[in-house]
Amino acid sequence: MSRTRVHNLSISLDGFATGEPQSAEAPFGHAGERLHEWMFATRFWDAATGAAGVDDALAQQHGVGIGAEIMGANKFGPPGWQDDPDWKGWWGPNPPFHTPTFVLTHRPRPPLEMEGGTTFHFLDASPAEALETARAAADRLDVRIGGGATVVRDFVAAGLVDHLHLVVVPIVLGRGVSVWTGLEGLEDRYDVEAVSTPSGVTHLTFTRKR
Amino acid sequence: MSRTRVHNLSISLDGFATGEPQSAEAPFGHAGERLHEWMFATRFWDAATGAAGVDDALAQQHGVGIGAEIMGANKFGPPGWQDDPDWKGWWGPNPPFHTPTFVLTHRPRPPLEMEGGTTFHFLDASPAEALETARAAADRLDVRIGGGATVVRDFVAAGLVDHLHLVVVPIVLGRGVSVWTGLEGLEDRYDVEAVSTPSGVTHLTFTRKR
Repeated sequence: MSRTRVHNLSISLDGFATGEPQSAEAPFGHAGERLHEWMFATRFWDAATGAAGVDDALAQQHGVGIGAEIMGANKFGPPGWQDDPDWKGWWGPNPPFHTPTFVLTHRPRPPLEMEGGTTFHFLDASPAEALETARAAADRLDVRIGGGATVVRDFVAAGLVDHLHLVVVPIVLGRGVSVWTGLEGLEDRYDVEAVSTPSGVTHLTFTRKR
Repeated sequence: MSRTRVHNLSISLDGFATGEPQSAEAPFGHAGERLHEWMFATRFWDAATGAAGVDDALAQQHGVGIGAEIMGANKFGPPGWQDDPDWKGWWGPNPPFHTPTFVLTHRPRPPLEMEGGTTFHFLDASPAEALETARAAADRLDVRIGGGATVVRDFVAAGLVDHLHLVVVPIVLGRGVSVWTGLEGLEDRYDVEAVSTPSGVTHLTFTRKR
């Protein structure tokens, strides 16, 4: 059975997955890369110098059994990328997705075939419609909701997410995009596991109740 | 050296220490007692039936070495208690404080001597002034900031808190009083330890940097 999954979405203690303002120079605003330092230290991020262990094991789940990704327009590029016909994402010629990748935008453009198996498709669609399209492309594998936080929230609120992995980093950002907005009572629909690790982060795994 | 400490302040994943609306019938609003179930299961709360272990050990710190408490008006009673001259707090004749206890209110009244060593004093004062008064009464022991969340926030923001213990409960409340408001960059001033426990909560201990 194909599931819909979220992995490695890092948030501050106060729930922000990104700071503000977001720009080409500062994709995460005033948060910088502080939400992701735990991940940079793993083998998942850097096979040569990263560490194994529980942070790494959970991070590695990101790619296991995934056949397609859906991401929001704000993950694909800085504000205004839709006005740049040459924008091909942040990731260079070989993006780290290696599957069909669906970018939600109100201004779709033709698909972009990249190296390494990633093809970007641009969709103006509701979460349910986008998921149906991505699932058809995923060849019976799972679909990852790649973020940002508003897209994850929308898919969770629509009841479309089976597995949600958040990583709480011990900083207080004060402002930004909160992953929690609109998700009151989330625990009624999911089993929740909390595991703190020696790096100082706490992994929250939400598994949809049967 | 006398320190200023916060203990056992329970918050939801989205940072709320209480739901809403607060009333005599529902002191924590729509949160009910869901933020405190972890504590009810400890020996700290019920010496006869409670469990030992790390939740209990951390909860027990609440009383160790404390010589006075400061609490907000919203902890002492429901909205409007100031209009009831007979209101003596939620806790019956023998409140669980057993020290001088300072209630911050813009409408002070004479002190109330209760059983078991608790005397309620009513202060219209700034955090720094209240702390000076409480410290003088604490006989060189530590001062506990007893909450609610707005009072804790005010004392932390004023740089008056040495030790802050929060307990993150895996529920999403959606609305209420957030402990994080105004505390951007808290990690610059504190070492932060996160420990998840088998009950499902995560203890956050902030220790002021030297």
